[in-house]
Order: sequence, then structure tokens, then C-alpha cells
Amino acid sequence: MPKTTGRVTLPSEGNFLNETKEMMARWGADALRDSDGTKLPEDIKALDAKIYTTYFVARGHNEFARKHMEECQQMYLMSRRVTAVEETVDIPFMEGYFEQQVMPDYVHDCKKWWEVIDRTSGEIVAVKDWDIDETSHTVTIKNASPFHEYTVSFLVFALWDPTQMYNHITNNWGEKPHEIPFDVRQPASGQFAKDYLIQWLKENPRTDVVRFTTFFYHFTLVFNQNAKEKFVDWFGYGATVSVKALEEFEEEYGYALRPEDIVDNGYYHSTFRVPSKQYLDYMDFIQRFVARKAKELVDLVHEEGREAMMFLGDNWIGTEPYGPYFPEIGLDAVVGSVGGGATLRLISDIPGVKYTEGRFLPYFFPDTFYEGNDPCIEARENWLGARRALMRKPVDRIGYGGYLSLAYKFPEFVDYIEKVADEFREIYDSIAGSRPYCGLKVAILNCWGKLRSWQAFMVAHALWYKQTYSYFGILESLSGASVDVIFLSFEDIRKGGIPEDIDVIVNAGAAGSAFSGGEEWLDSNLVSAIRQFVYRGGGFVGIGEPSAVHSGGRFFQLSDILGIDKELGFSLSTDKYFTKEMDHHFLKEDRHRSFDFGESMGNIYALSQDTEIIEFSNGEIHISAHPYGKGRGVYLAGLPYSYENTRLLLRSLYYSAGKETQMKRWFADNPLCEVHAYPETKKYAIVNNSSEAQNTVVYDGEGNSSHICLEGSQILWRQM
Amino acid sequence: MPKTTGRVTLPSEGNFLNETKEMMARWGADALRDSDGTKLPEDIKALDAKIYTTYFVARGHNEFARKHMEECQQMYLMSRRVTAVEETVDIPFMEGYFEQQVMPDYVHDCKKWWEVIDRTSGEIVAVKDWDIDETSHTVTIKNASPFHEYTVSFLVFALWDPTQMYNHITNNWGEKPHEIPFDVRQPASGQFAKDYLIQWLKENPRTDVVRFTTFFYHFTLVFNQNAKEKFVDWFGYGATVSVKALEEFEEEYGYALRPEDIVDNGYYHSTFRVPSKQYLDYMDFIQRFVARKAKELVDLVHEEGREAMMFLGDNWIGTEPYGPYFPEIGLDAVVGSVGGGATLRLISDIPGVKYTEGRFLPYFFPDTFYEGNDPCIEARENWLGARRALMRKPVDRIGYGGYLSLAYKFPEFVDYIEKVADEFREIYDSIAGSRPYCGLKVAILNCWGKLRSWQAFMVAHALWYKQTYSYFGILESLSGASVDVIFLSFEDIRKGGIPEDIDVIVNAGAAGSAFSGGEEWLDSNLVSAIRQFVYRGGGFVGIGEPSAVHSGGRFFQLSDILGIDKELGFSLSTDKYFTKEMDHHFLKEDRHRSFDFGESMGNIYALSQDTEIIEFSNGEIHISAHPYGKGRGVYLAGLPYSYENTRLLLRSLYYSAGKETQMKRWFADNPLCEVHAYPETKKYAIVNNSSEAQNTVVYDGEGNSSHICLEGSQILWRQM
Repeated sequence: MPKTTGRVTLPSEGNFLNETKEMMARWGADALRDSDGTKLPEDIKALDAKIYTTYFVARGHNEFARKHMEECQQMYLMSRRVTAVEETVDIPFMEGYFEQQVMPDYVHDCKKWWEVIDRTSGEIVAVKDWDIDETSHTVTIKNASPFHEYTVSFLVFALWDPTQMYNHITNNWGEKPHEIPFDVRQPASGQFAKDYLIQWLKENPRTDVVRFTTFFYHFTLVFNQNAKEKFVDWFGYGATVSVKALEEFEEEYGYALRPEDIVDNGYYHSTFRVPSKQYLDYMDFIQRFVARKAKELVDLVHEEGREAMMFLGDNWIGTEPYGPYFPEIGLDAVVGSVGGGATLRLISDIPGVKYTEGRFLPYFFPDTFYEGNDPCIEARENWLGARRALMRKPVDRIGYGGYLSLAYKFPEFVDYIEKVADEFREIYDSIAGSRPYCGLKVAILNCWGKLRSWQAFMVAHALWYKQTYSYFGILESLSGASVDVIFLSFEDIRKGGIPEDIDVIVNAGAAGSAFSGGEEWLDSNLVSAIRQFVYRGGGFVGIGEPSAVHSGGRFFQLSDILGIDKELGFSLSTDKYFTKEMDHHFLKEDRHRSFDFGESMGNIYALSQDTEIIEFSNGEIHISAHPYGKGRGVYLAGLPYSYENTRLLLRSLYYSAGKETQMKRWFADNPLCEVHAYPETKKYAIVNNSSEAQNTVVYDGEGNSSHICLEGSQILWRQM
Repeated sequence: MPKTTGRVTLPSEGNFLNETKEMMARWGADALRDSDGTKLPEDIKALDAKIYTTYFVARGHNEFARKHMEECQQMYLMSRRVTAVEETVDIPFMEGYFEQQVMPDYVHDCKKWWEVIDRTSGEIVAVKDWDIDETSHTVTIKNASPFHEYTVSFLVFALWDPTQMYNHITNNWGEKPHEIPFDVRQPASGQFAKDYLIQWLKENPRTDVVRFTTFFYHFTLVFNQNAKEKFVDWFGYGATVSVKALEEFEEEYGYALRPEDIVDNGYYHSTFRVPSKQYLDYMDFIQRFVARKAKELVDLVHEEGREAMMFLGDNWIGTEPYGPYFPEIGLDAVVGSVGGGATLRLISDIPGVKYTEGRFLPYFFPDTFYEGNDPCIEARENWLGARRALMRKPVDRIGYGGYLSLAYKFPEFVDYIEKVADEFREIYDSIAGSRPYCGLKVAILNCWGKLRSWQAFMVAHALWYKQTYSYFGILESLSGASVDVIFLSFEDIRKGGIPEDIDVIVNAGAAGSAFSGGEEWLDSNLVSAIRQFVYRGGGFVGIGEPSAVHSGGRFFQLSDILGIDKELGFSLSTDKYFTKEMDHHFLKEDRHRSFDFGESMGNIYALSQDTEIIEFSNGEIHISAHPYGKGRGVYLAGLPYSYENTRLLLRSLYYSAGKETQMKRWFADNPLCEVHAYPETKKYAIVNNSSEAQNTVVYDGEGNSSHICLEGSQILWRQM
């Protein structure tokens, strides 16, 4: 590969000038950044590079915050459940929370803003029947129903930014002050945020890119009495709440939110919950506020001739990069952490910014860069995982974080990243902004649709969860597959129907969740629209518990399309005749190992002999297909990410759309390899996703095949 | 053992006089019976034995039935679902049914008695919008909503008794007439049933016991177009339906049933469905009718000085031996098939009869009694399984069915049954009607309660189902355990509270089923009553998905008692701290092998550090316990039957009730052995449930221990 430069951001630090120059040259970096715990010294800032500087809007200004404690951010919290054993019951509502993080709000009228709920009957306890002891943080309920469970939903002030708290506690920062989050919705805070930025821009003339980390409201992150994480939702609007926000909401929407509209039984409307109308209204209300306020800051940055970059995380709530208001902010760029293909696409697909940047792993921190460890392992895994997605839609820049001096001590790592940076630029320049060949257009259907593109099935950002990995694999698979992917909500279909150009709809997730859809499936217009779509030739792929809500004698409301349903125990009296899997089927043509369905799904049975049973074991179906008019339904019991499962999903998509004869175009037979074609630039790439050498048959756009050998992780670029 | 006689019934047949005498002597039989396909000849009837004769009330009289086809039995059936693809849709409603079994009822006004339902919207289609073509058995719907699914609920006449049909088809009976079931609710049939019995009794003077097989209505058993079983519910009231019954119901109850009240989305109110009020009313209505009509026949038998015995099966619907009206029938005896311990108790616990009889396995049929096969294997398994239950509550008689001539050819089998018969009489005489020692009183709580004592988790009688065996094991375990078992319904608790003498409540089953309880758990009075019970010292054992209905932020409504809940995906954002199982716990003191939870349960997590995690694997809990006031909750992920699981359940029961120190009374340490004590007769028995020799420590009623060696399957009787 020829040596190229640019599109790479490096962290740097003090007393590291010459090494920084060397690393910039090796990796072709054209931008330098500070990092958590580092500040760029003047000699570094003087280098020929763009300078990024981290900027906190709503924390890190305790001298201001302490003077305006009434403008602290707020949250609604739910107490633990307490069972009444007689007619009087005490609820020490702060139990289980961390008093250094949150403090009950006794400033505003608790009888107005709090709610005591009988969770056994579901009823709200009359305010006359409870009182608060502010000393012990206890609500006492009288006239309680014995052996009912009660909770208190109460407002708190947030005293400590949870990200700083986590770093503070983890790194034993001792006496370092706790950064107090203030709320820019409040008058003094709103003004301060602007004034300070103006001053800061003046004081930091060498900063080219203001790296907002981030804006106003942290994702919901609450700690317990032992300062351990208690609740985390990377999408949660918990920290956006305040009396002022609730009052303004009521004025604007004409109805008041209840505490329960936020608290939601203690689920706090996590992204897995089917959102209520109230919660959607509230989100929209917050998004509009955040966009308006963020624009004010971005405008100030632009007035000073700098760029505004947003970090996708921490205080990102309300920005919703795929939401309708995000482009109005006017950001130049978004930067985010890349955990794999799906998180890369989450960044690179963001509309309305000039460029995107991915922060790759590993972070240059001592947990990876210690003697005896090989940081190349994590780097290679991260790069190969994300590279598939880069081939589809690259971020415009890559970068790293942490202490450059740590990475510098690992020459093999430096070598490896040099290759990565060169390969990234080669990919970027070869694609040159052109659209890759897509054999199919696939819509992921759930409650969130476009708003949470590439964000389905996540709790905390890209962490593994037992209940999610069997679904998250779908996104990871698709992130690098040669299909066009869009995200569609149930509401989109209700309002605008199913877009004409969609080949396949995918619905996946646990029953009742926002991703499967829960009671959305009781909407007969929705169900009919999808049936019509498939009947006329479209594909439907259901994974896990698709269209699941028990009604009318079925659990999967699209069981007629899928040809299967899940036995809940109500239809045990009905004989299940079909238990033999087919020896051969398009979906398993290249499967040599047994299938891996992750957590899988039990008790799936075929409804008719038309159902093609592709995998049957343990007395149940795990893969099936079923004709429905001119289209087909395909069922998969789960799809944890692997190259084999990516292939299984691709086959499912083509088969469901009735386009299985078209799959072998710009295609590699070997599931460890993929072909990406760029008709506009007349180039195509044959990619070995594995670290080992691979042989594969490769098909061109007309389906002509040839045999190719690839070295480990090689990309072979060819002209059409 | 001394040679004893009596309490044993043998089948006999023609040309088998001397062998019958020999077998009677060997097995100590004092009664002879005919069997399916055999008739006792006069020489056999002349022997010194009670003579049982099978009697069919509502079938086997085709000369009558053919003259009164309008009095055929009826059923409601649901057509398959048909999707409308335009505004007109045809439903060939007989598709999938067997025209030799059922025929649409066009006699009664279809527009009045049938129902066309839009299963997608749940709405009933107006009668003006559909018409029937009686030639092709097709309903045509107009003004349909495209891509909605439609069904027809239609009345049929039943033309063939399903048990005879099954035997007819299985045995290729060719031209043998199909026995037409007639409905004794109709005038001519009701009269005929009595007249014929009077005449029959006169013609069969040597019959001592009229073995009713059974009364009027077969359990629901419907065949498909290929004459294969399509729907089977051993508890189903499907065949009790008729226009006359529906009219009489409306007159008596003041409201009309809809077809859907029977059809129930195609589930036909299987015993797994939480029963609706309408269905419970209907069952009660049928039970009263059946009891009244059956009494008329039993009275006729008694007038002739004979005994009336009911076979528990086939046409038993509406008798409900544990229901309120059963004793009114005045039966002398019930006989039923013994598949194991639970089915034995199902027979032996029946109240309101003079004696009970168990028909043991194997049946003397060629499928077992063929050259090269050892029928002793099945006999031993059946006997050892049932014997545990006999030790708790014996049937009064045992018996066999089939062809005695077949069994006679297997001398080792004849030897084995000779021992069985002697052992049975020894057990029976030793217990002498006394009540065995019970260390605890346990209530199984579900929708059916006492009505379906020992009948929970069954589809067809005692058959294995993937979705049931992990729960049926509870009944099988308890059937021979030294605890008192009662069956309690939710309604019982609502009406009368929890009986004072209960130690432990057990709730088990799949979420939403009649056995777990589904929406019954939304009743806060019910929930509070159980909480109070446990708080005051009672035990609660939940198995599978106990108290499961998603509401108020919990799936298990008694999760506060159990200290665990099931993660449905809504609370993934909440940290789960407790993942370490305890090294030692009362529940696993004698466990040496890994646990077997059958189908098991996923995603169970602990709610607090008070939860005692007893088994944790695959990232989830399978056994736990939790203190609640003075009582405890215990959770088990499933309990397929085994001796080890019987012990696990016993430990769970004692532990939940806080009586774990009292477990080792009349107790054997070795889980393959059990002790049964009879304080009234001052005897106790140490039983080896296995076929191999066993060593065990045995505890007496004061907890004093001694060491005992037992031969394979031995019972050691001792005086206290």
C-alpha cells in the first residue's frame, strides 16, 4: 500500500513532543486531541494538526453551580417496594440510593410533585394519606391495605455527574471536587453556559474543534448506597426531568405528566419498553429544547471560526442524532466509540453533519497497555469487526483516545495501527463517497424506527447482555452486509404505509418489548399492511418472538405468514403433526456446523404442512420458512453474531423476498469472506474477514464465478 | 408372605376355563371381567367370582340411533383460519375435519347458532355479511377486511364415537358399523337409555357389577381429514354441546352462551385455559345434568340388586368425581387406569363411592405380549411407581385388562403378578383404612382446585408432553410422599380464605395457564391473602412461572415472597447483583448429582441479598429461597419426576414452612427409600422404591435413627 496521510486523530500529552511527531508521521495523523485526564501543552498545540479540545457544558463549573444549587439537574426516582403489614407503613425512600449522587427535592411541593402508589392494586394513594419526614427521608402511609406493596416516586436533585462519579470512584480521586450537573433550562445556568463558552473560546484560540462532551443531560445512570451502578439506560431521559420542564410541558401540551409517566413501574421507560404516548411527547419536548439550546452554543463556536463536534455518549440525551431536530443543531461532526460494525454504522450513518469520526479500541489505558499483554489482539478484533461496516459506509475519520505514551511502548501495536490507518485511508479513498451495491433493501421494524437506527437491543452502549446478544447479532450482521438497511417504526407504517422499495421486513426481539412490538400488534391495520406486503411478494423475517402478543388464538400475530407459532400451553390439546426437518434447503446450503441460536426460543411449532422446517431439535423448530402469497416468511430462533449467522441471515433475507437466485452477485461462497462492490467507481473489494488465509469462489455482478485465495484479513481491490 | 386372596379382578374369555381357574388361584382373584373385544362365556360366569360386565350407555345401539339422527350428539368446531385477500372470502369450514366423524348441522338455524369471527380485529362478522353453501360446506363472507383472518364456528352432529373410531381404525375393523353417539338430553334417547338398561339387566342376570363405560359424553376428541387425532382434551366438554343444551342453559341462567364461549379461539377451553365465568357456568350446568341422569341409571342397577361401577375415562365428561354433584350419582365404585402414583391417587382419593379399583399396566394386548418381549419390565415400572401412592391411600382393588390367554403364555409375568397381588393385599391389610403419618399439609393452588384433584397438567390421560412433564412431576412426587395434599382454587381462597391447617401453598405452571393462574393474580385480595399467610409463618413454593402476570413492574406477583422475578427484558437496565449460589443449603444437603429441572425456566434473577440462591447456572437462578415474615418462599425452575426431585420437593416444602427440623421423622435418608407410618395401627413400612438393594438411615417418629439394608423393591413392615 502506498503511504498516505490524514483522517486520523491522536491523543497527545505533555513532555511527548518528539514522540508525538513520530507517531503522527507513522499513522498519518492530522489531528490531535486531549483525553480524560490529559491536557495538550503549548508545544503540542503548535504542531501542524487540527487541535480538538474536550468541552463540558453542564458540569465542571462548581464555582457557578454551588451558587445556584436550585438549578441542579433533577430526576424522578422510585423507592424500593415496601409491603404494608398493617394500616401504617413507612417507606424510607432513599434506601438503596447514593446520597452523594442524589438528594430529595423538598423545595418543591412534594404533595404536588411526588406520587405514592399501591403497586398491588395499581392505585395512587391519596395525598392526605401520606406524610414525609424530611429528616429521615421517610414517607409514612396511613390507611394502607395490609399486604399491598407501596412505592414512593420522588424528585431529587442530582449532585454529581455520573460519568465523573464513576471515574472519581474507580480512580480514587479522593478530595477532587464532585462535579455538579446544572440544568441549562434554568435562567442562570442557560446564561452561564453561553457566557462561559464565549470566554473559553477566547481563552483557547488554538482549539480548532470544540469537542462537546456532550451537551446538557446525561443518560440515566443511578448508583446504589454502595456507590455501585444501580440503573443504567444509555437512552434514558431520566436526567432531563425538572419541575420547570414539567411545567413547561404542561403549558405546551395541555396536559400534565404524572411522575409515573417517567418512573414507569421502576422501568423508567427503558428503550426496551413500548413507549407510551406521554413518554413520546415528553421525548419530543426534550429533543426540541436540546436542539434549540445546543444550536445556540454551536452558533457561538461557528462565530469564532471553530468547528463543533459532538461526542456520542455521556450527556447526549435529547440530541437523538437520527431524530428530526438534530440537523438544526448545525454540528460539524460527531465522534463516537466503535465497538464493532453496528456501533460504527450508528456513527457513520448519522445524517446532517459534515463528517463523522470513530474512536477505535483499545483505549490507551493501563488496563490494556500493561507489560505482558498484547494490545494488538483487541485492536485486530475491533478493526476486523468494524471494517465490514466501513466497507458499507465509512466514518470520515478514525481516532484513538487515552495516553499516547502508553501505546508508544508497544512497537508491534504501533506497527499494526500504522497498517490500520493506511488501510482505512485506502478503503475511504476507494469508496470515495459512492454507494455500495445492495442486493436487497431491508427494513428493521420496531417501536423506535429511524430514531434509534443501529441502536436496537442496547442497554448500556455495546455491552453484552444475556437477553440481548441473540438479537443484537442481527444489527452486527447487517452492518457489514451488502444490503441496504433502514429502520422503520410501527407508526411509520400507520402513517405512510410500507415504502415501495422495501424487499424484506425484519421484526425481532422478546415478546412485549419495544423491539418485538408488544401490543402494537393488536393494531389490525398494521398487521394487514404487513400481510399485504408479503402476499404481494415481500419478505418477512421474524427472529425470537416476532409480532408476539397473545390475542385471538395466536401468540405471533403474523403466524399466518411465518407458518409457525409459539406454544404457550393453551393449545397443547391440538396435535402438532410436523416435526421433520428438510434434508436440504436454501437456508442451510453452506452450513457445515450445527446452528447457534444464542439464547434461542422454545416451543415453536409448525401450523401447516406448507411450513418448511429447516431446523428441528429438542422437539421444536428453530428455523423455518413459509410461503405466503407471492412472498415468504422466515423464522429464526435467535441470531447471535458470527460470520456463519451473518450468512444465515443473508440467506433468510434473500429467500423471504423470493430473490434467492440473485444472492450470488458480488458474493463470496466462503462465509468468512465478503464482496463489496461500488458500481459508481467501478471497483470492488474481496474481503477476508478472518485472520487466517481463505479460499473462496467469488461471484461478480452477473453471477460469473472465479476462485480466489486471500491472505489473513486481506482486502483485494479490483476493477470491474 | 402368607398366601392371601381377594381384591383382584381378572379379564377372561371363551375357551379358557381351566386356565382362568388356575390364574384366579395364583393371583387370588375374586372378580372376572370382560374386556374390549371379549365377552365372558357362561362357563366362566359360573365360577365363584364377581362378574363385571362392560356397559355402554350412549353408543353401541345403532338400530336406535339411526332412527333418531336428530338426537345425535353435537359439538362446536372452529374452521381453520382463512385470510381475506379481497372483500370476499370463502371458508370451506369442514376442511381438516373427518366427515365420517362429524357432519355440519344445517337443521338448526345457522345464522342463529353459528358465528363468523374476524380473528384479526376480534369482531363478530354480522350475519348479513355471510352465507353458507351447504353442498360444499363453505361460508362466503362479503365486506371482509382484506388481510384479516376469519374463522367459522359451526355446529356439527357427531356420527361416530371417537373411542370406537380409534379402535376401529387402529384394528382395521372394516365393515363393522360405526357406533353413533346419541344424546340422553333428547327425549327419545333419554328414555331409550333407561329402557334398554332395564331390559339388559334382565338379560344379564349373572352380572354382579355393571361397569359403565361410561355415561353420556366423551371427552373432546376430534379427528382430522386423514382420520388422525386432531384435538384431544381429556377434560373437554366439547361433546356435551347441543342446541337443546344451549337453550336450556339460557333459560336457567338468564343469558345465552355464544359459540365462542365454547370454541375459545380454537383452544376449546382446554384444562390449561383460565376458565371464564361462562365456561364455569356451563360446566356446572352439564355436571348437574349428568349427575341427575346418571343417578337414574344407577338407581335402576340398584333396584336389580347389582353394583354400579364407573370407568374413569372415555364418556366420563360431566361426572367430575371430585365435583359437588358426583356423590349424588350413588355409584358403588370407580375403576380407572393407573399410569403411576398421581393417577392412582386420582382414583383412590375419589370421595362418595364404596370402593375404588385400579387397572394396572400392561394391558394384556399383543403390543406388549409378543414373543421376545418381557412384559415384566412395564409391570414392574408400573407397580413400583404406583406402590408409593398405594402406601398413602390405596385403591380397594387392583385389576388387569385385555386377553388373559396372552398373559398366560408368559410364566415369569404370571409369577411376578402373583407377587404383586400378594404384596397389594399385604399393604391394604396393613394399612387397614388408617390414615398415614403426614408431616405437612400441602395445598396445590390453581384455577381448578379440588374439582381437578390430581388432574393438573394433563392433556390426554397421563401422556408425556414436553410442556407438562416438568410440572406433572410435582403431582407424581407428592402422590407417594408423607404429606397431606389438598387442591385449592383461587375462588376457594376468595370465598373462604386459606384453611388454617395448611402448611404450604404450591403454585406451579406456565404463565397464563389455569395452573399458574394468569390474570387471577391481578386480584389484590388473593395476593394479599397469600402474603399474609406466608408472613405469619406459612410456606409458598413456586415452580416454573408461579403467580405470573405482568403488572405493576413485576412478572411474578408474589416475587416479594419468592425474592426472585423473571426478567422479561423490561428491567435489563436494573443491575442484577446477586449471582453466587450458596455452597451449603438445606435444600441440597443430600444432592449428589446435578439438578434436573426438565424444560426449566430462564432469566430468573434475585431481587435482594436476602434471597438464598441455591442453584445458579447459565447466568440465572433455578432454585432459591427467601424469608418473608415468619414464613418463606421457595422457587424451583421445574420438577420432572424422579426420586431425587421428590426429595428436593419435600425439602422445599419443609423449608418453606419453617419446619425443616421436623423432616426427619418417619424418614429415610436415601432418596430411593421412603418410610410410611400408620400411627393408628402402630405399623410402619420402610420401602425401597428401586429395584436394587439399598442402604439407608431410617428415622422413627421421634427422630431416632437406625441403619437398614433393603433388598431391591423390598417393603419392610415394622411395629412401632
